[in-house]
Formats: sequence, structure tokens, C-alpha cells
Amino acid sequence: MVVEKFHQMGVAKSRIRVLFEYGMAQAKIVGKENVFDFSIGNPSVPAPAKVADTVRELLETVDPITLHGYTPAGGCAEARESIAADLCKRTGTKIRPENIFFTCGAAPAMTSVMNALAVDGAEFVLLAPYFSEYPAYAKSTGATCVVVPPDTENFQIRFDELEKRITKNTQMVIVNSPNNPSGVIYSVETLQKLGEILTRKGEEFGHPIYIVSDEPYRELVYDGLDSAYIPAIYPNTIICYSYSKILSMPGERIGYVCVPDCCADSEAVYAAIAGAARAVGHVCAPSMWQLVVARNTELRPDLKTYDANRITLYTELTKMGFRCVKPQGAFYMMVEAPDGDSMAFSDRAKALNILTVPCDGFGCPGFTRFSTCVSPAMIQRSLPAFRKLAESYGLKAQA
Amino acid sequence: MVVEKFHQMGVAKSRIRVLFEYGMAQAKIVGKENVFDFSIGNPSVPAPAKVADTVRELLETVDPITLHGYTPAGGCAEARESIAADLCKRTGTKIRPENIFFTCGAAPAMTSVMNALAVDGAEFVLLAPYFSEYPAYAKSTGATCVVVPPDTENFQIRFDELEKRITKNTQMVIVNSPNNPSGVIYSVETLQKLGEILTRKGEEFGHPIYIVSDEPYRELVYDGLDSAYIPAIYPNTIICYSYSKILSMPGERIGYVCVPDCCADSEAVYAAIAGAARAVGHVCAPSMWQLVVARNTELRPDLKTYDANRITLYTELTKMGFRCVKPQGAFYMMVEAPDGDSMAFSDRAKALNILTVPCDGFGCPGFTRFSTCVSPAMIQRSLPAFRKLAESYGLKAQA
Repeated sequence: MVVEKFHQMGVAKSRIRVLFEYGMAQAKIVGKENVFDFSIGNPSVPAPAKVADTVRELLETVDPITLHGYTPAGGCAEARESIAADLCKRTGTKIRPENIFFTCGAAPAMTSVMNALAVDGAEFVLLAPYFSEYPAYAKSTGATCVVVPPDTENFQIRFDELEKRITKNTQMVIVNSPNNPSGVIYSVETLQKLGEILTRKGEEFGHPIYIVSDEPYRELVYDGLDSAYIPAIYPNTIICYSYSKILSMPGERIGYVCVPDCCADSEAVYAAIAGAARAVGHVCAPSMWQLVVARNTELRPDLKTYDANRITLYTELTKMGFRCVKPQGAFYMMVEAPDGDSMAFSDRAKALNILTVPCDGFGCPGFTRFSTCVSPAMIQRSLPAFRKLAESYGLKAQA
Repeated sequence: MVVEKFHQMGVAKSRIRVLFEYGMAQAKIVGKENVFDFSIGNPSVPAPAKVADTVRELLETVDPITLHGYTPAGGCAEARESIAADLCKRTGTKIRPENIFFTCGAAPAMTSVMNALAVDGAEFVLLAPYFSEYPAYAKSTGATCVVVPPDTENFQIRFDELEKRITKNTQMVIVNSPNNPSGVIYSVETLQKLGEILTRKGEEFGHPIYIVSDEPYRELVYDGLDSAYIPAIYPNTIICYSYSKILSMPGERIGYVCVPDCCADSEAVYAAIAGAARAVGHVCAPSMWQLVVARNTELRPDLKTYDANRITLYTELTKMGFRCVKPQGAFYMMVEAPDGDSMAFSDRAKALNILTVPCDGFGCPGFTRFSTCVSPAMIQRSLPAFRKLAESYGLKAQA
């Protein structure tokens, strides 16, 4: 007498979780230093000291009834004003506090947007590779997921395949750039082309097709690259953001939705998102953390470790003969299974105590995902095991 | 092209919110000290100092990657173990850490349980007066709300009306004791009788009918009264709890669901709750606050102010000739509209700058709700206005 789809979602242990538990058990047998866990996307750089300093300052200076009290559903005035002002400065566009709706992280931001737009028969387009929770989120809204297969050369968008899949029922295309799992950033050209297609298809079908931009890795970019502000390229864009990665506080659950004024029916969309959040018991995002992020809009993470890890792992594995997708952002790197079987590749790596997630669940079979938010020392220790893995596939070391 | 039911929920300003905004505007005209806002249920007693002390201690002693990092979906081990141990001690029953699922407060706890149990055709029974968000939560799950009219004498349960409304589709009866809005606690006799009926009906229909006990006011009790531990009376009980009221931190969004082992199909129910939470983007409850509550299970609120307010307001209004429901817990008191029209009563009070919420939205027309989590001084200042209100209805002062 329970709802079966939710029961299934509750008992299904994610492969990442199973790997994590295997790693813990294996560490007891072979020693913690001999298990190389590349499976988890938990920031490995601590929160900047300013986060704790701000908490201490708030405890000293703000009346506890206000500090820990209910805020309006969309967030307290100070926090919404601060975020809006920061977005104005960054993007050179006008964002008002009324465009911001604080949420308990990017995941409930995404599900609220999905619920708000899941009209009867709605189709949500996922661009592979995509974050593995999207299908579960979409399914529970009643919408149909439509998957565009991956561009396994450049990890941009296969526009021919996308065009074929847009119908009169298409409500949104989900963009996640910098991307989990590929680490690739969509180029401005890619986003312009995407915008052109959605504009044309929107006109053809007589309603806006939204881009829902899930961008928790927005500031985690390397090589002098930058993440585009998508509403400036395609106005019908809704942004979902999280402070989990930029401030290394994924457990504290603080993020927001931004529905800019340029977005079609922005007021109705915002209201429907607020209503969808309310329907699942959203009251407000954690009140103290709203103020912490509001007072730290200038903080940027120390990306040196992630960047160095990315370069080390990419360089070393490429030298061994693996085909790797060069990451430009986030903290993931994809490696192609030499024989195309990512599940077998992951299993073979596991036998060498290298833990990695096959990308089948991300819509990209044939590849596995390595998190680079790990310790540099672990990467160094893991290299002999990677060499054995390369040898087992008969790969030739590159000059 | 947005989902209409969510749009409606997003634009519908609650009457409480409208009153609050009216109060703010009116304060500018007549002065803040001349507006008597009894509409809002925000704790007026600050969080105990130990809350801030624990935050400071955690910032000093716990590695920030752990402190602010993802926890398992149901909560970190320390927090679940601590809560389970405390429940064992309080109830004399066996609660395991695996029975606890941390949530972002009681509201998402309730919606996750509702979603988990909203099988096709499900009916959820609400006992009036009930918390005004329940119908919105239930509706969004697809279940049908069935309302048992209020016992306006004692504010216990009208069992004759309840029995008539239990069908083969009844999945749950929601219990909220101490009650919002009545402030009344269900007696042990009431709960035993409820348990007997649900046991009998469950046998008749061949499936368990759950009590879902929403108990954020569990420790806010007066006159030496206590809240019963319902699973000891009726095993098929699921508990939703929040630290919002007990620790005066409603904005921080921390609470839990407890599915005790005695509850029928407890493992399947727990898994479905976890799945329903996952489907709407629950990743974990705020990680630092999990540890704060875990380390403060012995903390109790300073109830003196609430208790004194309750007695003052009850005594004074009763003396003026109003019929009041004597609160035994929580921080609300209901007053009957002398002519039975609670909307008109609320409007007439508003004209005297007394802000109070009609209980029509709580399933209890004819009454209005006064929050007693206000300042004692405001109550004193409001008494002349209450006298005018009493006079306007021709009420006779009692000896």
C-alpha cells in the first residue's frame, strides 16, 4: 500500500553509493591508501574560512529570532537583493530581487521548475551526457524525457538529433554547463545555435521552449574559460544555481532559481515555481545560510587543487593510451572504455581498487566518470594501478 | 504553459500574509505599538544560547569538508543515532537510527509521507481543525482529502463522523496534537479510541490505516500535561517532527520522519518516503543543523512567556465575555465569533488594529486563531481594543 515508483526510488541504491561502500570495505582489507576512489563528487577543497567567519559574525550581530526565523518563501530581502545586485554586476543585465527564489540547493530548484512546467503531455529534452538524477526528477512530474544522444567527439550538442526530437509538447531543454559528467563547457557558438533552434521551433509551435540551465559549476572553470550567461543569448532561460560547489558546502542546501524578466511569461513561471515548491513543503531555504551567501557573493573557490588534479589525471592517463575528454570546468573527467564496454571497464578498474562510475546512467555508455575532487596524493598513488589497467587492455603508451 | 494548480498555489497570497502586510502598513499610520498582530506563528522566544554555542563549537572542531558536506539522504550517522537514542529514552520503546529520516523541517516530512502513501484512489482523513496547508499538500499528491468536522465543545475527535468517512481507500488519518490552531492536546482516551477504530477498520478492509502524527509542538505543553507517544497506543503510526518550535529556529529547516518498527510494512514505508523525498530533489537535510540538533536532544524551550501569554489572553478575553478554547499546548488560542461569522469578526478586529486569522481555512468556521507567541507587552496594550470589540458585539463582562 505504498506508491511503487517512490518505493523503487527509495530502495534503488545508486551505483555510486554501492561503489562507495565497497571502497570502505576494501580499505579495511588492503589499507585506505590503496583504494583509489574517483566515484564521488563531494568538494575536496574546504569551505573558504570566510564562510565560518560570516556564521560567527551573524551569531554575534543578528537577533536570533530574525537569524533563525522564517523568511518569505522566496528568501529574505537582504539575500535576494544581494544576489540580484551581484547578477546585475556580473551579467550587465537587469535582475531584480523579485526574480530570485531561494531553494534548498539546485536539486529542489530543478524539481520545482520541472513541476511548474509539466503540463499534460509535456516533454523535457535531456542532452546526453546529463546528470543522472534528471530522469528520476522528470518522471515523477509525469513529463516524458526525450534524450538527445551525445556528441562523443566534442561533447557539445548534436543539433540534427535535437531538431528531430523537438515537438509541440517540448517544454524545456535542460542545459548543464560546465557539465557533470563530461567537465565540458558549451561554447557560445553552441548556445547561440541552440537558441536559434529553440526560437524557430517556439515560433513554429506557438509557445516558448525554455532552457533550464542547471549551473552549480558556473564558477568552476579553467584555462581562462568562462560560463556564458545564457539569458543574454536566449531569453527564455530559467537558471538553477547552488552554492554547494562554489563554497564547498553541499550539505547545507542553499541555492536559488532565477527567472529573469526577459523570460517569456516570467511572472507566471515564477509563481508556478513558487507554488510547486510550496506543494512539496518548501517553506523557505535555510535562513542563516541565506545571509551567509548574500554576504559572500564575491567569494570564489580556490581552484588550484582541482585544476592541478585535472591536468595530472588527463596528462597521465592520455600518456598511458586512454582516450580522455579534456575537462574545461566542474571536477569530473570522462575516460572512454577501450573496448567500448564501460561497465566491464569499471569492474576491471575496481579489481585494481580504482573506483569509477560508468556513464551509462548519464546517457553516455562507453565512458566512465572520474571525479577530480580528490587528493593530489591519491592520484599519484593510483598511477601504477592505472598502468596495470592500461596494460590489461593492451594500450600503447604515448610518447 | 505552466501547470495551473501550481500557478494558483504560487499566486494565492495566504490570508496570514495579507494580514501581516496590512499590519506593516498600518504601523506606519497609527504607530507600531498600536498594531496588535496575533496572526503569525513565529516563535517569539529566542533560540536557546546553547544553539549558537554548538554552532561555534562545530566550526572549531569539525573539519569543514565533513561539517558542510553531503550526508546520506536520511541523515548522518551521529545525528540519527542521537535522535534514536533520545526517542528510546523518552518512550521506553526501541527506535533504531534506521527508523529516522532527516528532512528540511516537518512540512517536507509531511509531503514525503503523503506522496509515499498516495496510491491510486487514496483518501487522507483530516480532523478539523487542521493545519491549513494539509489540503494543498494532499491535493498535489493526487489523493482526496476527507474532512471530519470539528468537535467544537472539547476539540477532541467526533468519532461518529470519523467512522462514517473511513473507506477501503483510507490510507491515513492525520493527527496534529498539540494542535494548530486549537492549542488542544488529544487525550490518551481519544487516541486509544482512535486506535481501536483504525484497528477495526484496518482489519475490515485488509490493510493498515496509518496515523501520520505531525508533532512540531510536542514539547510545547502546559499545566503539567504531556503529549502521548502515539505508536505505543496505535502501532501503525508515522511521526513527523520539526525543531522549528522547540529550538526557535523555524527558518533553518530541520526535522525528521520516524517510521518505527512496530508500524506495518515499516521498511517499505520508509523506502517509499525516501524515494518520494528524492523525487522532489531532497539530497539531505542541512548538514550542520543535523549535528546541532543531535547534540541538543535535552534542550527544552523556555515556555514561561508562552504560558503566561496563554493565561493572560485566555483569562482577559473570557472575562470580557468571549468564548475561548483553553489551550493546553502549542502557542495558539481559538476565540469563537460571537455571531458565528469568523470572517466578519476578523474584519471587525482588524478595524481595531487587532490582527487574527479566521479558522475557516483550518476547517473550523466560526472561530478565529490568535497566536500567543507574541510579546506580553503587546497583549497588555491590546486589551482596550479587545474591550471595544467585545462591546461592539454587546458581550457582557463576566464576574
